[in-house]
Amino acid sequence: MLIEEKIKSLGLSIPAPAKPLAAYIPAIQTGDLVFTSGQVPLQDGVILYTGQVPTELSAEDARKAAEICCLNCLAAVKGVAGSLDAIDRIIKLTVFVNSAAGFGDQPAVANGASELLEKIFGDKGKHARSAVGAAGLPKNSAVEIEMIVKLKPLN
Amino acid sequence: MLIEEKIKSLGLSIPAPAKPLAAYIPAIQTGDLVFTSGQVPLQDGVILYTGQVPTELSAEDARKAAEICCLNCLAAVKGVAGSLDAIDRIIKLTVFVNSAAGFGDQPAVANGASELLEKIFGDKGKHARSAVGAAGLPKNSAVEIEMIVKLKPLN
Amino acid sequence: MLIEEKIKSLGLSIPAPAKPLAAYIPAIQTGDLVFTSGQVPLQDGVILYTGQVPTELSAEDARKAAEICCLNCLAAVKGVAGSLDAIDRIIKLTVFVNSAAGFGDQPAVANGASELLEKIFGDKGKHARSAVGAAGLPKNSAVEIEMIVKLKPLN
Repeated sequence: MLIEEKIKSLGLSIPAPAKPLAAYIPAIQTGDLVFTSGQVPLQDGVILYTGQVPTELSAEDARKAAEICCLNCLAAVKGVAGSLDAIDRIIKLTVFVNSAAGFGDQPAVANGASELLEKIFGDKGKHARSAVGAAGLPKNSAVEIEMIVKLKPLN
Repeated sequence: MLIEEKIKSLGLSIPAPAKPLAAYIPAIQTGDLVFTSGQVPLQDGVILYTGQVPTELSAEDARKAAEICCLNCLAAVKGVAGSLDAIDRIIKLTVFVNSAAGFGDQPAVANGASELLEKIFGDKGKHARSAVGAAGLPKNSAVEIEMIVKLKPLN
Repeated sequence: MLIEEKIKSLGLSIPAPAKPLAAYIPAIQTGDLVFTSGQVPLQDGVILYTGQVPTELSAEDARKAAEICCLNCLAAVKGVAGSLDAIDRIIKLTVFVNSAAGFGDQPAVANGASELLEKIFGDKGKHARSAVGAAGLPKNSAVEIEMIVKLKPLN
């Protein structure tokens, strides 16, 4: 099954790649790697999940935020690679969670992205990952994720 | 125009690459990529901008700090590549902003670096970027930036 | 001397690579680079150093935590590369230190990892590095480190 069909079968969809803001771009390819910019839980122009975890937002809601960030990362990759079918392997996620002092369950939040990638890509979705607590994130987002993927060789 | 002349025309200059501290180095090349160490707003041996944004330092001042961090990243690349003219593309910035809880305008701070790179390098300066709030940074710096660049192929 | 013998001569050892948790893996190779997941100061199934620096844990103890994180990064690389002797160069460390607001001595903490790498690998252990204060880390760990290494070419 093609990757976007797989995503639809999960009840999800890949948004249009975010438009460039200021002097940076959503993603960039160098060699066979694509590096995305940090993506926030933006959907239809609105940040859906904001605030610090767990004082202003539950870890469970932040996990949903991580799913949206992950889809936005894939949208950024698609904008560079043309199609998600060009992805050979998800290499690395860095998941920043807007964290109140003492919060230590960043991994549960990050699993929202990691488990989604495995559902979509199977073994090719298994990646290295860091989950880190941030003191603040753009527009008070609950989560920000950046991704590195490897593309398939061109024939 | 050569890149360092372009930088001078903006009223700026590239400092001498920072000397190695402890067992790490300012930048390292692998393949055609150069990874810099995190650079702080150090100028002539002094950290020019310290403290948390916005409680101890304005976002506008932190933006100036980001410019200096960016020049220090370029100095680190120059120390490895010999010349800034060897840069083919700025690939990625990670911008850590020393943030008070609830601060969410890391992107405005990071634009100090991103917009400077576009002024210096034009389209080759457009990069992927993450802007993240840190709970603290080395020597209480207001901003810390790390950079990945791609070098031109050797003839 | 082989690298694991060198590590033993320092009174240290490389643990078994951590088992995969959730849908991510301890490290992944792409081209000649290996990216590790963020590693915490886990030893024999216990996080040895937890809490914010310096309010709950001294910088000196956090430095010891950084050493353990570093050994766990090497274990993750070994799990992918088969042997630490396959490492050509340590490229990059990102060291996140669980930091109370105002703490700025992340570099001293990170030196626990950087200096250990130089002891083990000599000049090949010299790397680029960022040291950053986190508002929280997985399981309240004091330190989290991720590593990029370059492997030797296969014959």
